[in-house]
Amino acid sequence: MSLIKTAAQLEERLARADRNNRSLGFVPTMGYLHEGHLSLIRRARAENDLVVVSVFVNPTQFAPGEDFESYPRDIERDCGLAIQAGADLVFHPPAEEIYPSGSSTAVEVTGDMTRKLCGASRPTHFRGVTTVVSILLNIVRPDRVYFGQKDAQQAVLIKKMVRDLHIPVTVVVCPIMREADGLAMSSRNVFLTPQERKSAAVLNRALQKAEDALRSGLQGGGVSMLEAVIRDEIGTEKQANIDYFQILDGETLQEISRIVPGRKALAAVAVKFGKTRLIDNRMLSVE
Amino acid sequence: MSLIKTAAQLEERLARADRNNRSLGFVPTMGYLHEGHLSLIRRARAENDLVVVSVFVNPTQFAPGEDFESYPRDIERDCGLAIQAGADLVFHPPAEEIYPSGSSTAVEVTGDMTRKLCGASRPTHFRGVTTVVSILLNIVRPDRVYFGQKDAQQAVLIKKMVRDLHIPVTVVVCPIMREADGLAMSSRNVFLTPQERKSAAVLNRALQKAEDALRSGLQGGGVSMLEAVIRDEIGTEKQANIDYFQILDGETLQEISRIVPGRKALAAVAVKFGKTRLIDNRMLSVE
Repeated sequence: MSLIKTAAQLEERLARADRNNRSLGFVPTMGYLHEGHLSLIRRARAENDLVVVSVFVNPTQFAPGEDFESYPRDIERDCGLAIQAGADLVFHPPAEEIYPSGSSTAVEVTGDMTRKLCGASRPTHFRGVTTVVSILLNIVRPDRVYFGQKDAQQAVLIKKMVRDLHIPVTVVVCPIMREADGLAMSSRNVFLTPQERKSAAVLNRALQKAEDALRSGLQGGGVSMLEAVIRDEIGTEKQANIDYFQILDGETLQEISRIVPGRKALAAVAVKFGKTRLIDNRMLSVE
Repeated sequence: MSLIKTAAQLEERLARADRNNRSLGFVPTMGYLHEGHLSLIRRARAENDLVVVSVFVNPTQFAPGEDFESYPRDIERDCGLAIQAGADLVFHPPAEEIYPSGSSTAVEVTGDMTRKLCGASRPTHFRGVTTVVSILLNIVRPDRVYFGQKDAQQAVLIKKMVRDLHIPVTVVVCPIMREADGLAMSSRNVFLTPQERKSAAVLNRALQKAEDALRSGLQGGGVSMLEAVIRDEIGTEKQANIDYFQILDGETLQEISRIVPGRKALAAVAVKFGKTRLIDNRMLSVE
């Protein structure tokens, strides 16, 4: 069986697999795997001798009242999909394995970067993310760790944490996977009603319109004009309740007034459809 | 030369030394080595194939107005002493190697434990300590890391951080080394005037009196009586300016009213002599 519940079992299995002399790729997930996760696992498979996938719905990155309890879970299906996509081992620890009784150590990227975008509406979220990723990296000790660009701010913060703390791992960020109508794949998409599901395609459409506007050169790279394009497009969907939309520097997440050659900008949106909050983003650049 | 300035050089030297197939002991210090540090290095030498000592006066564990600037430094002497005591390599990075421009990630043990004793008078100190130790552990990746019991609260917090974050290292805490008159060895002892140096012996004397009182059984293990013994003894020295003295549970640092069989208690004191703040402690237990 490739499903592993404890750090000690994982250590033992990796030692048996001669982990010290083989490269190890790690894909941390919250499970309910979709094509986005599977693309990370396939990439890890292609680049490493051993691949570990974790499935752990991390309680510390949910605030009270968020969807921790209802977050979709199906470990048997996940395990099958992960193995099929190339995982050697699936690590599925209970919460008390990751956070033993009395745990109170946190890893936090401080400063502005954490307070923007999702950090503004979910102020404790990223502290939970960086803490659990630190813990998982200490348990798995991979050469490479894989994240999706869908969670753009998370990817920026993880890269910063790894750099700041000198964590000996390479962070690989993989492209967003999308449904036929452009909706970014997300485990939370299952919560959408058929009507909301249809409306949700507006996120990608709005980002695409901003990119088209930038390409057409009409906006001259001015960020407020591009943000207006996004807002207007999302406004066409009555069901869409905007949490944020913003264009920031793609690396520092600082505010910018224009997109300039040589620096990528991150256009990021978060929108609620009924009770379900979805995010999407696009990297923008000019020649 | 065994003096190494960058993480990349250290990595290269450890790779050449076949670090993956040999046990590695690590002694992080702020330099100006004394017998206390040397006892850690000798212990590391006895227990490991390779020994790395770091000398880094960590700016983030000093608050503005504390003695960061004046903290004593002598890297040439330190390097010689470390090698003589058994170090293979001495890692002496500049601050920008540990904290590259824009660094803003912190590792913090949250909760009461960090706010007591030294944490009360130095509220940002331990956040700096746990952050730099995390970074150094990520750079050196030792099997065992050595700390002195002199910094008792630091040792407790490091052990907690290592456990909470699943850092793959064994924390070894070594006994306090003392001068002939019982003064705990400290790099800061050089700041004492001859008169203060003489007075400073009161720290160990006070702790010894508390231990004797406990042994005599007269106090029945009652903590407030033992604390009174400590206060009265320190009070005999006019130059001694008490910052704190307290007896807490030795593992959780929670307040206790009595010392009970099976649990160690930590009697800890901090006293200023002129501008120099010294700490000392003793583990107390009853049968």
